[in-house]
Amino acid sequence: MVKVKVVEQVTKANDQIASENQALLDVNKTFAVNLMASPGAGKTSLLMRTVEALRGRLRMGAIEGDTASQVDADRVATTGIPVVQINTGGGCRLDANMVRPALKELPLEELDLLLIENVGNLVCPAGMALGQHVDVVIASVPEGDDKPYKYPGIFLGVDAVVVNKTDLLPYLDFDMPAFRELIAGMNPRARLFEVSCKTGEGIEAWADWLAGQCSKKS
Amino acid sequence: MVKVKVVEQVTKANDQIASENQALLDVNKTFAVNLMASPGAGKTSLLMRTVEALRGRLRMGAIEGDTASQVDADRVATTGIPVVQINTGGGCRLDANMVRPALKELPLEELDLLLIENVGNLVCPAGMALGQHVDVVIASVPEGDDKPYKYPGIFLGVDAVVVNKTDLLPYLDFDMPAFRELIAGMNPRARLFEVSCKTGEGIEAWADWLAGQCSKKS
Repeated sequence: MVKVKVVEQVTKANDQIASENQALLDVNKTFAVNLMASPGAGKTSLLMRTVEALRGRLRMGAIEGDTASQVDADRVATTGIPVVQINTGGGCRLDANMVRPALKELPLEELDLLLIENVGNLVCPAGMALGQHVDVVIASVPEGDDKPYKYPGIFLGVDAVVVNKTDLLPYLDFDMPAFRELIAGMNPRARLFEVSCKTGEGIEAWADWLAGQCSKKS
Repeated sequence: MVKVKVVEQVTKANDQIASENQALLDVNKTFAVNLMASPGAGKTSLLMRTVEALRGRLRMGAIEGDTASQVDADRVATTGIPVVQINTGGGCRLDANMVRPALKELPLEELDLLLIENVGNLVCPAGMALGQHVDVVIASVPEGDDKPYKYPGIFLGVDAVVVNKTDLLPYLDFDMPAFRELIAGMNPRARLFEVSCKTGEGIEAWADWLAGQCSKKS
């Protein structure tokens, strides 16, 4: 009973801070996307491809979440956009309270789009509000086409599913039509994009959708 | 303060139950291995390859952990070994209290080796005792060679690291010597195995090591 009570309090406190984060983003007309995925599915690669695709159209910034290290933040910094690293110290996801100080360190008034890369995890980040406007999960071809069955919490709640590493389709047994059907059944409102961050294939459609979401909001 | 106190209580209670689980396994001379990995790294595939490699040498059983579904348990059941599914109901890892009733459902006195497949997650299962004798993390080539930097908690605590999907090495930029060096530096006691569950390459060395651990214990 004690445990449940604490979890409820934590979630409620998080939602309150997440609302404040979103209000701060809205005042600055900054649209935020929460990128979630397994470790190694390609969150950083998609983020960098997105920056490349939308450069000149939108002013962008990033928050990089990891349990440890700043490998990803260093990679993203090479694109020239402002980036803030959050190390969760072993924590399995970002929360609104971690994102709050990171927002203060970013020049929000100069940003149209904030890309938030969550910790690599298909369980913990689901349903944890940060202040974002849209949620996206990246699946990847080598992980297999059965992940939505096993991690329904995350696939049910997102606005878009990006399937990355399509360049590996010839070497793997990933049934794309079955995956598409599964997502359509579980979460009909989710858009599905097939991309290869390695070759760049499919990135334009994804980036156009994201820019569209961003402009609808502002 | 309240949060920390509850977490400590939970961990302590878990350790107590884990000790009881291990005592039950020891009485039955059953050796237990905890298989951890990202979603889609190949936990179920490695488990099935291990059963195939050690059939006739060891009597095996399995516990399958997932947030939802019984896709994996159904796959493992096709091997003919006894298998118990644990659905965590959204929980990001197994704990000792979930494993306890599963042990009661298995014919432990007839099992030499119990393969426990944890929930796909590189953060939460780290350091959570279940009653197992050895911990193993499966990395996979498509995830990239930088995962130990980002998820040190799990790589620091294991007895072995299995790198799966080596058949994909020709198509990806995974620096195996660098990965080997990184593991040797972080966790010198961990054995490293390179395998392809698709082709079967490297499975024998891994299975031999596991059987050796099992016989050392009994």
